[in-house]
Amino acid sequence: MYVGRSYRLLDFALWSRRSVIYMVVVSGLAIAAYRLPGTSGFSVPWSIVLVLGTTVSLVAGFKNSQVFTRANEALQAFSQITASSRLWSSFCRDFTDAATARQLVHRHLAWLTALRFALRRPMPWESLARAANVEFRRRRYHIQEDKTSLADELRGLLGEEAENVLKSPQPATALLDMQLTQVNGLLKSTSIPPQIYSELTKLIRDFHDQQARCDRIKNNPYPRQYAIISSMFMMIFCTLLPFGIVPVFAEMGKLGGVLGAIAIWLTIPFSALLGWVYMSLDLVGESSANPFEGGANDVPISQICRDIEIELRRGLGETNLPKPLPALNDIAT
Amino acid sequence: MYVGRSYRLLDFALWSRRSVIYMVVVSGLAIAAYRLPGTSGFSVPWSIVLVLGTTVSLVAGFKNSQVFTRANEALQAFSQITASSRLWSSFCRDFTDAATARQLVHRHLAWLTALRFALRRPMPWESLARAANVEFRRRRYHIQEDKTSLADELRGLLGEEAENVLKSPQPATALLDMQLTQVNGLLKSTSIPPQIYSELTKLIRDFHDQQARCDRIKNNPYPRQYAIISSMFMMIFCTLLPFGIVPVFAEMGKLGGVLGAIAIWLTIPFSALLGWVYMSLDLVGESSANPFEGGANDVPISQICRDIEIELRRGLGETNLPKPLPALNDIAT
Amino acid sequence: MYVGRSYRLLDFALWSRRSVIYMVVVSGLAIAAYRLPGTSGFSVPWSIVLVLGTTVSLVAGFKNSQVFTRANEALQAFSQITASSRLWSSFCRDFTDAATARQLVHRHLAWLTALRFALRRPMPWESLARAANVEFRRRRYHIQEDKTSLADELRGLLGEEAENVLKSPQPATALLDMQLTQVNGLLKSTSIPPQIYSELTKLIRDFHDQQARCDRIKNNPYPRQYAIISSMFMMIFCTLLPFGIVPVFAEMGKLGGVLGAIAIWLTIPFSALLGWVYMSLDLVGESSANPFEGGANDVPISQICRDIEIELRRGLGETNLPKPLPALNDIAT
Amino acid sequence: MYVGRSYRLLDFALWSRRSVIYMVVVSGLAIAAYRLPGTSGFSVPWSIVLVLGTTVSLVAGFKNSQVFTRANEALQAFSQITASSRLWSSFCRDFTDAATARQLVHRHLAWLTALRFALRRPMPWESLARAANVEFRRRRYHIQEDKTSLADELRGLLGEEAENVLKSPQPATALLDMQLTQVNGLLKSTSIPPQIYSELTKLIRDFHDQQARCDRIKNNPYPRQYAIISSMFMMIFCTLLPFGIVPVFAEMGKLGGVLGAIAIWLTIPFSALLGWVYMSLDLVGESSANPFEGGANDVPISQICRDIEIELRRGLGETNLPKPLPALNDIAT
Amino acid sequence: MYVGRSYRLLDFALWSRRSVIYMVVVSGLAIAAYRLPGTSGFSVPWSIVLVLGTTVSLVAGFKNSQVFTRANEALQAFSQITASSRLWSSFCRDFTDAATARQLVHRHLAWLTALRFALRRPMPWESLARAANVEFRRRRYHIQEDKTSLADELRGLLGEEAENVLKSPQPATALLDMQLTQVNGLLKSTSIPPQIYSELTKLIRDFHDQQARCDRIKNNPYPRQYAIISSMFMMIFCTLLPFGIVPVFAEMGKLGGVLGAIAIWLTIPFSALLGWVYMSLDLVGESSANPFEGGANDVPISQICRDIEIELRRGLGETNLPKPLPALNDIAT
Repeated sequence: MYVGRSYRLLDFALWSRRSVIYMVVVSGLAIAAYRLPGTSGFSVPWSIVLVLGTTVSLVAGFKNSQVFTRANEALQAFSQITASSRLWSSFCRDFTDAATARQLVHRHLAWLTALRFALRRPMPWESLARAANVEFRRRRYHIQEDKTSLADELRGLLGEEAENVLKSPQPATALLDMQLTQVNGLLKSTSIPPQIYSELTKLIRDFHDQQARCDRIKNNPYPRQYAIISSMFMMIFCTLLPFGIVPVFAEMGKLGGVLGAIAIWLTIPFSALLGWVYMSLDLVGESSANPFEGGANDVPISQICRDIEIELRRGLGETNLPKPLPALNDIAT
Repeated sequence: MYVGRSYRLLDFALWSRRSVIYMVVVSGLAIAAYRLPGTSGFSVPWSIVLVLGTTVSLVAGFKNSQVFTRANEALQAFSQITASSRLWSSFCRDFTDAATARQLVHRHLAWLTALRFALRRPMPWESLARAANVEFRRRRYHIQEDKTSLADELRGLLGEEAENVLKSPQPATALLDMQLTQVNGLLKSTSIPPQIYSELTKLIRDFHDQQARCDRIKNNPYPRQYAIISSMFMMIFCTLLPFGIVPVFAEMGKLGGVLGAIAIWLTIPFSALLGWVYMSLDLVGESSANPFEGGANDVPISQICRDIEIELRRGLGETNLPKPLPALNDIAT
Repeated sequence: MYVGRSYRLLDFALWSRRSVIYMVVVSGLAIAAYRLPGTSGFSVPWSIVLVLGTTVSLVAGFKNSQVFTRANEALQAFSQITASSRLWSSFCRDFTDAATARQLVHRHLAWLTALRFALRRPMPWESLARAANVEFRRRRYHIQEDKTSLADELRGLLGEEAENVLKSPQPATALLDMQLTQVNGLLKSTSIPPQIYSELTKLIRDFHDQQARCDRIKNNPYPRQYAIISSMFMMIFCTLLPFGIVPVFAEMGKLGGVLGAIAIWLTIPFSALLGWVYMSLDLVGESSANPFEGGANDVPISQICRDIEIELRRGLGETNLPKPLPALNDIAT
Repeated sequence: MYVGRSYRLLDFALWSRRSVIYMVVVSGLAIAAYRLPGTSGFSVPWSIVLVLGTTVSLVAGFKNSQVFTRANEALQAFSQITASSRLWSSFCRDFTDAATARQLVHRHLAWLTALRFALRRPMPWESLARAANVEFRRRRYHIQEDKTSLADELRGLLGEEAENVLKSPQPATALLDMQLTQVNGLLKSTSIPPQIYSELTKLIRDFHDQQARCDRIKNNPYPRQYAIISSMFMMIFCTLLPFGIVPVFAEMGKLGGVLGAIAIWLTIPFSALLGWVYMSLDLVGESSANPFEGGANDVPISQICRDIEIELRRGLGETNLPKPLPALNDIAT
Repeated sequence: MYVGRSYRLLDFALWSRRSVIYMVVVSGLAIAAYRLPGTSGFSVPWSIVLVLGTTVSLVAGFKNSQVFTRANEALQAFSQITASSRLWSSFCRDFTDAATARQLVHRHLAWLTALRFALRRPMPWESLARAANVEFRRRRYHIQEDKTSLADELRGLLGEEAENVLKSPQPATALLDMQLTQVNGLLKSTSIPPQIYSELTKLIRDFHDQQARCDRIKNNPYPRQYAIISSMFMMIFCTLLPFGIVPVFAEMGKLGGVLGAIAIWLTIPFSALLGWVYMSLDLVGESSANPFEGGANDVPISQICRDIEIELRRGLGETNLPKPLPALNDIAT
C-alpha cells in the first residue's frame, strides 16, 4: 500500500507510459488516414466518441467502486484479525500456564504466517505479472514472502510440529484445527473455566471467518466478464478518440500562420493526454482488484502480521523481538 | 467461475456473435433506407441516440452493479459454509465418539450435496438455456451435478437413512433437521457438555441461515421488471444506432476518392462494433444474475463442496479421498 | 413476484399503454403547434431536452436502485423468518411434549398468518389502486389474503384463543407475546433446560426483529418527496420530448419524396417509443416500491408462508397438509 | 413523514415557489441583457450549461442518495427500539412482581420521552427555520413536543424520581443508567434468574446502542462541505440557465408571426420550469437531511413512541390509555 | 466538524481562492494564445471539454461518495464507543468496590486519551499541511491535542501506572490489555459473578474492535491511486476549460458594441467561476478523506471524549468535573 503523500506524477507517468505510446501510434495512424490520398478526410464522428465517453466513464466508475469495496473488505479482515489476536494473547496468558500460553501464541503466529503465504501465492488473473507492474516492483520495493519460505518460518515457530503442518494441503486450516483441539483439551481437563473456553472458541471462530473471507477474496477474481467488458469499452474509446480529434485540429489548420502549419499535429499530444488519463483510470482499477498479491496498492499484510508478532511476543515477555517492516519508497507491503 | 487471466477476446466474440449479426442486419436496413428512393435520406437524429446512450449506460451500470452484489452474496454464503463446516468437523471429532462423529460429518456432507443439487436445478428465468450459453457450455465445460444423481450420492453418504431423506420434498432441510435432533439427543443423554451443545446449535443455525440465503437468491430472480426495462432500452438504442450513424458517413462520402466510394458502408463495421459492446454489456449482466445455475461466471459450488468434503474426510482419518475438481478450460464449476 | 423467464413484451406494453397514449397526444400537439400559422415553427430546443435527459436517467436510476434495496430487504426478512421457523419447530418438537409442541407450532403459524394479513392491508401510497395495476391484477392473478379472513384462519389454528387475539389491535404482536409468556412458563416450571430456553428466546427475538423490519417497510413509504421529484422530472422530460423532436423530422421533410411527405408524422412513433420506455422506467420503480402490497413484482409472502406451514405441519406428523400455492400465470403471490 | 398517496403538486409548488420567483427574476435579467443596447446579444454558451447540468445531476443524485441512507438509518433505529421495547415489557411482566414491572416499564416510557425531546431540540443546521418550511408547518401540522414539556411528562411517568432525572444534563442516559442499576440489583438479590438478567442487559445494551445511533444522526449534520458544494453548483447552474436559453428563443423570434413576437419571452416560463425542478431536487435533499427535526419528511418519532406507550400500558393492564397520534393532513410526526 | 448552519460563502471562497487564482492565470494564457499572432485562433474543441466534464463529475462523485462512507464509519466507531463506555461505567460501579470501580473507569478514560492522541498524530497523506487548511486552522480553531501532551494527561489519570503505559509503543492497546487482566483477576478471585465477567469482556472486545476500526481508517489512506487519478482528471479538465471557452466569447465579440469590446475578457470570470466550483468539488473530497486529523470537516473526537469523561466522572460521584469543549467558530474538534 502506498503510504506517501501522493504518488509522484512522474512515477505514475512512467508506470503508465505504455498507454501514451499506444495513443501516439494511433494518433499517427489517424493523421495518416486523414491525409493520405485514398482515405483523405477520414475521421470518426465526434458524436460517437461522446456517447462512448459517457459509457466508458460510467463503466469504469462502477468498476473502480466495486474494486474499492473488495480492497476495503480485505483491510477489514486484517483489522479484525489484529483485534482478535490481542484478545487471544491476553486470554492465553491470563488463564493458562506459561508453556501452554507460549504454545498457543506461537501457533497463532504460525497461523498468521501460513495465511500470509497462502494469500501471496500468484493467481492467473493477478496483475503483478504485467510488464508495468513487474518493472515498478523491481525498482521500488520487494515482498517479504519472496525472501523466506513458509517451511523455514514455521519451523522457527512450531518446532517439530511444523513437519505435520507442512504436509497438510492447507497449513492455515490445519493450524486453526490444532488450536481448537488443544483448547478443547483444556476444557476437558478443566484447566480453563467454561467462560474462558467460550471466549477462546469465539476467537477461533472469528479466525476461521476472517480466513474464509480472505480466501474468498483471494480465490475469486473480480468477475472477469466485467473486467473484459470494461477494458473493451476503454480500448474502443481510446482507439477512436484520435480519429475523432483529428478533423477538429485539421479545421484549425485552415487559420494559417504558425498554428495553421502545426495544427493537425496537435492531435498527437491531445490524444495522448486524454488517452493516458482514461487508460490509467482502467489500469488503476485493474491494479487494485487483487488486494493480497503484494502490489503497490494492496493491503500490507506482511507489515500487519509483523506488527502483531512483535506485540504478541512482547506480551509473552520475549525480548529478542523482530523489527517492524518499514515502508520502502513509501510502499508498505 | 472463470478463473483464467482474462476471457480470450475470441471466445468472448464467439459467445456474443449473435449481437454482431443483429447489428449487421440493422445496419444494412439503415443504409437501404437512406438510399432507397422512397425513403432517401431517412435517418434518426443523433441527438436522440445521444440521450438514449446516456440512459442506456446508466441503466446497464446500475443493473450490473446489483447483479454483482447478488453474485457476491452467493459467494459469501459459501465462504461462510466453508468456515462453519471446519468448526463442525472439529467439534464433532473432539467431543463425540468416532462412530457418532463419522455420522454427523457424513450427514453434513449429505446436506452439502442436497443443497448443491437443489441450487443446480433449472429455473425458468435462468439463462443457461440461451443459445449462446448452451453452445459455450457444450464446447468448454460441464457440470458435476449433471453426471450423477442426488439419490446415488446420498446413498453413498447416508446408507439406509438416505431413502427417508429422498422422500422428503426438501432433502437439505430434512438433513439439517436430523442433525439438530441428534445433537439434541446428545444433550439429553449428557454425552456432550452444554458449551459444546451451544456451539453445535450455533453452527446448525448458521447452516440454516446460509441455506435460506442461497434459497433466497435461487428462488427470487433479479427482478424481471428491471431486467426487461434494461433490455428494452438496450434494444431500442442499438436498433436506432445505425440509423443515426448512416448520415454521418454518407456525408463523408461527398469527399470523393476511394473513401468517398465506400464511406457509407463504414456504417456497418462501426455499428457492429458499437452495438456489440453495448449488447455485451447487457448480456454480461444477464448471464451473471443467477449465480448458482452453473454458468461460466457463477459460483463454483461443486468445487467448493468437493474441497470441503476432502478436508472433512481427511479429518475423520479416511484415506480413500475423492479428487479435487479441477477447473476445465479455466472454468471452475 | 414474476417468476417466468421474462415479462412478455406484449404484457408489458399493455400494462404501460397509458404512457403511449399520453405521448401520442402530446406529439399531436407538438406537430400542431409547429404547423399552425400562429405558432408555426415552435419547438423546444433539443439542448434543453438533452440536459433533462441526463438528469432524468440519473434520478430514475437512483430511485430504482433504492427501491431495489427496499424490496431486497423485504425478501431477506422472509428468508430469515423461514430459517428461524424451522429451528423453532425442531426445538419445540425435541424438548416439549407433543401437546405443547403442537400448540407452540400452531401459534407460530397463527403469527405468520397475522403478519401476512397485516402486510397485505392497503396503504394510501401503494400503487395497486392504479388503473394499470388493477387491470393487470384482474386479468392475471389474485391474492390469497383477499379470499379468506384473518378471523377464520386464526380460529382454525388457535381454537378458543383466537378470540382474544382478534380483539388485540395488533394480533401479530399479541401472538409473539403469548409465545414468550408460554416459554417463560416452561422455564419457570423447569420443563425445558436453560440452554433451550435461551435458544427459544433468541428465536422469539428474531421474530420480533423481522416483524419490526417488515412493519418499517410497510408503514414507511419510499419517501414521497423523492417520488414526486422523480415523477416531475419524468413528466417534464416526456412532455418536452416531442416538441424537441418535431423540428428535426420537419427538416427531414424538406428532402421531398415519399419520406418528405410523411417525415413530420414520424414524430409520433418516435416520441411514443421514447416516451414509453422512459415513463416505464419510472413506472417500474413506482410499482416495485411497496414489496408487500401483492403486486406482480412483490415478495410472494402468501406462498412463502404456505411453504413454511406445510413443512411445520409435516414436522408435527400431521397428514392433512394444505397444498403449496402455485404461481398463477407466472406470478407468485 | 408524509403518508398520503403523493404530495399534491399544488402543495409542492407552493412550498417551492421561492425558486420560481428567483428564476423569473433571473430570466428577466437575461432578456434585458440580451436586448439592451450595450450588452445586446449577450448570452452564456449552452455548452457550458450542458456540462454543468450533468455535474449538477450527479452531485444532487449522490447527495440525495446519502441523505436517504441517513433517514433510513433513523427509521431502523426506531424500528429496533419498538421490537426491543416489546421484549422488555414481556420479560419485566413475566419475571418481576407487579410493582417492579410497572416501575421498569414506566421508566422505559420515560426514557422514550426523554429521547424524543432530545431528538426534537433544534440544531443550527436544521432546515425547519427556512421560510418555506416554517410556513408549511404552520399551515399543515404541528409537533407533539412543542405542546408539552419534558418535565411535565416525566413527572407523570416517574413521580418523585423525575426531579433527579431532570437535573441530569442527559436525562435519557440517566434513565438507562437507572434501569441497569435496578436490574443489577435484581440479580444481586436473586430476584431474577441469571438467564433473565442476561436478556434484560442485552436489551439495555440495545437501547444504549440505538440511542447512540440516534444521537450520532442528530448531532452530526450531513457534512456541510458537501451541502454547500451541492448548493453552489445548483445556484450557478440555475443562474446561468436563462442566459443559455435566451438566444435559442430569440432565434425562434426571427420566424415572425405571433410566435415571433413573443418567442423571446418564452425564456421566462421555460427557465422557471426547469429552474424550479432542479432547485427542488436540491431543496428536497436538504429538507430530508435531518430526520428528527420534525419536518414533513422526517421520522414520525412522536407517533412511534405513542404507539409503544399504548402497547406497553395495555400490557400492564392499564385501562386509561392515551390515544394514538393521528397523521394530520397526511403528515405523521 | 463544522456545526454551523452552513459554511459562509466568503469563508469557503477564501479557503479555496487558490483555485481561482490558478484559473485566472490559465484564462489569461488562453486569451493570449487565441490572440497572439503565431497561435491566433488556437482553442481546445469544446467537445473534448464536454467528454471530460462528464468523466470528471463521475470520478469526483464516486470519490466523494467513498470518502463520505469513510467519515461515516469513523463517526460510527465513536458513537459505539460512547454507548459502550456508559455500560462499562455502570457495570464497574454496580459490581466492584469503589476503589476498583474508580480505577477501571479512570483507566478507561486513559484509554480514550491514548486513542485520541494516536488518532491525532500526523500522517504523510493527510491534508492539514496544505496551505489552504493551515491558514484556515490558524484563523479559526485549534485542536485540544496540540495544547497538552499524552504523558501529562495519562499521569493525571493513572498515577504511577502511567510510566509503564508510556513506555509501551502502543499505549492504547497496553491499557486495554491491563483492563482485561484486571477483569480476569476479578473473575479468578470470584469478586464478580460470571455474568458480569461476560458483560465486561464483551465490552473490552468491543473497545478492541472499535480501536482496530479507527486504526484501520487512520493507517490506511483513501487509496492514493484513486486520489491521483481524480486530481489528474480535474486538473486537465480545468486547464483545458478556458481554452474551450475562449472561442465562444470571441465569437460574441463580433456583435460589436460595448459587449463586443469586452466579450473575450468574459472568458476570465466564467472560467474562474467554473474552475473554482469544480476544483472545490475535488478539494472538498480530499479534505474530508482523513476523518481523524482534526480538520474542519472531521470527527470531533476531542469533544466526544470530553463528554464521555464528564459523564463517567459524574457517575463516580466526582464533583471537580472538566468543562465541555465548546465549538469554536462553529467548528467542533
